[in-house]
Amino acid sequence: MKRVTVIGLGLMGGSLALALRRAGIAEHIVGCGRAELVRRAQEMSAIDSGCTDAAEAVAGSDFVFLCTPVETSIALLARIATRLSPGALVSDVGSTKSSFAAAARQIFGASANEHVLPGHPLAGREVSGLEHAVVDLYADCIWVLTPVMGEAAVAGEAVKYPIASHRALHAALEAIGARVVFATPEEHDRTLAYTSHLPQMLSTVLALTLEDAFGADNPALQVHAGGLRSMLRLAGSEPAMWEQIAASNRVNIAEALERMEGKLKALRESLGHPEFRTKFEQAREFAKVLRG
Amino acid sequence: MKRVTVIGLGLMGGSLALALRRAGIAEHIVGCGRAELVRRAQEMSAIDSGCTDAAEAVAGSDFVFLCTPVETSIALLARIATRLSPGALVSDVGSTKSSFAAAARQIFGASANEHVLPGHPLAGREVSGLEHAVVDLYADCIWVLTPVMGEAAVAGEAVKYPIASHRALHAALEAIGARVVFATPEEHDRTLAYTSHLPQMLSTVLALTLEDAFGADNPALQVHAGGLRSMLRLAGSEPAMWEQIAASNRVNIAEALERMEGKLKALRESLGHPEFRTKFEQAREFAKVLRG
Repeated sequence: MKRVTVIGLGLMGGSLALALRRAGIAEHIVGCGRAELVRRAQEMSAIDSGCTDAAEAVAGSDFVFLCTPVETSIALLARIATRLSPGALVSDVGSTKSSFAAAARQIFGASANEHVLPGHPLAGREVSGLEHAVVDLYADCIWVLTPVMGEAAVAGEAVKYPIASHRALHAALEAIGARVVFATPEEHDRTLAYTSHLPQMLSTVLALTLEDAFGADNPALQVHAGGLRSMLRLAGSEPAMWEQIAASNRVNIAEALERMEGKLKALRESLGHPEFRTKFEQAREFAKVLRG
Repeated sequence: MKRVTVIGLGLMGGSLALALRRAGIAEHIVGCGRAELVRRAQEMSAIDSGCTDAAEAVAGSDFVFLCTPVETSIALLARIATRLSPGALVSDVGSTKSSFAAAARQIFGASANEHVLPGHPLAGREVSGLEHAVVDLYADCIWVLTPVMGEAAVAGEAVKYPIASHRALHAALEAIGARVVFATPEEHDRTLAYTSHLPQMLSTVLALTLEDAFGADNPALQVHAGGLRSMLRLAGSEPAMWEQIAASNRVNIAEALERMEGKLKALRESLGHPEFRTKFEQAREFAKVLRG
């Protein structure tokens, strides 16, 4: 990678710039964001140069990473489309992929694959913002690449890329420590509805249920242990971020929630019956397999 | 405490014996359990003497701790009732309290308070058995005492005990590092249905929901992050233990599950509406208050 542009200098973008820098795979990193963030990213030596305008920031770059919330990334993709260098590849780090991939197909038509390869690193922290960016945020994380058109979408299997810039992106992500897997945008969004969005909703709804039953600061709630605290950890996440995720993956999330509601009802109805224990045994076995 | 009997030499009983020993508040500790466990507890210097018969084990002791599952503790209470020394106090460590307290009232009638003061330490590990017993299992844990009759049941507030053995038990628990709070057995069971049993059921049902949607070892499920793993940790718990807890707190657990189902449905119906974000903000605030 000769020249890389990172648009959006928050936790994700800042950490990505730091990681690319340390891995030594980008000759020049351009940062794009609010003036204040550009200045701080330069002070942190995360970027070599910066500007506040996205269309300007991509000029001359081989790779562009959109590190903004999904809806913002879609708007930015339309804005930078005509300003990209020939052969430049755009990727992103959004939590959902179908709407971004659809936008890429709409903007670039039949050549969308050559210009865009969306991605989603399963990394994050309970905090956000450039001040929390760390060089090893992506070390050992799963990074899903979701080709916008039929190219090789078997999760977990490497593919032969017909497009050179795709190979270079894959290699760069591995160089910063990520484990790259593949899925179609639609597979990705359905899976994440269950493995990420559903757990988040459960933690949030658990908090709402406790508040509904006891009120916000009932001393009785002191009577809890580590199990509750671990189940409420995700409830501390950023509401604005989850509003966007939910909006861009609504159908899948609704399906996952409805399935969970049905399973909760079934467990409730099994209270006092032998199936209750069978369900616990089945769940324990599943959790063991998942942990590997 | 001159002579203490610990019945049930598993994780809870073994750790209790070790902690009482280290705190130097029991002159002699009798352990009761299967012969093999008695032998191992003696090798660990957790107990001074041991026997395999509960009725024999309580002879001459001032304090008896039943460290067995709830249903077993109820059966044992009936068995040892006529063998207790005058003034001896029985406590337990069961996860639910109403059925044990009711058994105490039935067995001892109007004098139940003098003979029994049930308890529940909110401590535990993902593992069980004497081999995992540790001297500091109860350090800094909340230990709920649930008087079997109207005595002072305001959670979190110390009380004036009319009964000397109750004061001694309270002091011993503080000596091993526990933070003692009070509740009626019924308050305890309703609170724990929400703060302990509901989080457990959610983790179990999350596993069942994922398995239902994907199958047990679908490679797509590799695409997950730390959030899912933390939400699935409790699903690894012992099914036999939870079968007993559920059986002894069925009405409260059913109430908590049904309330949770309703809140999940409400969140699902708010997808795409402004209330979605409001709910996330409310949950985040609650989680913050609970963590303190």
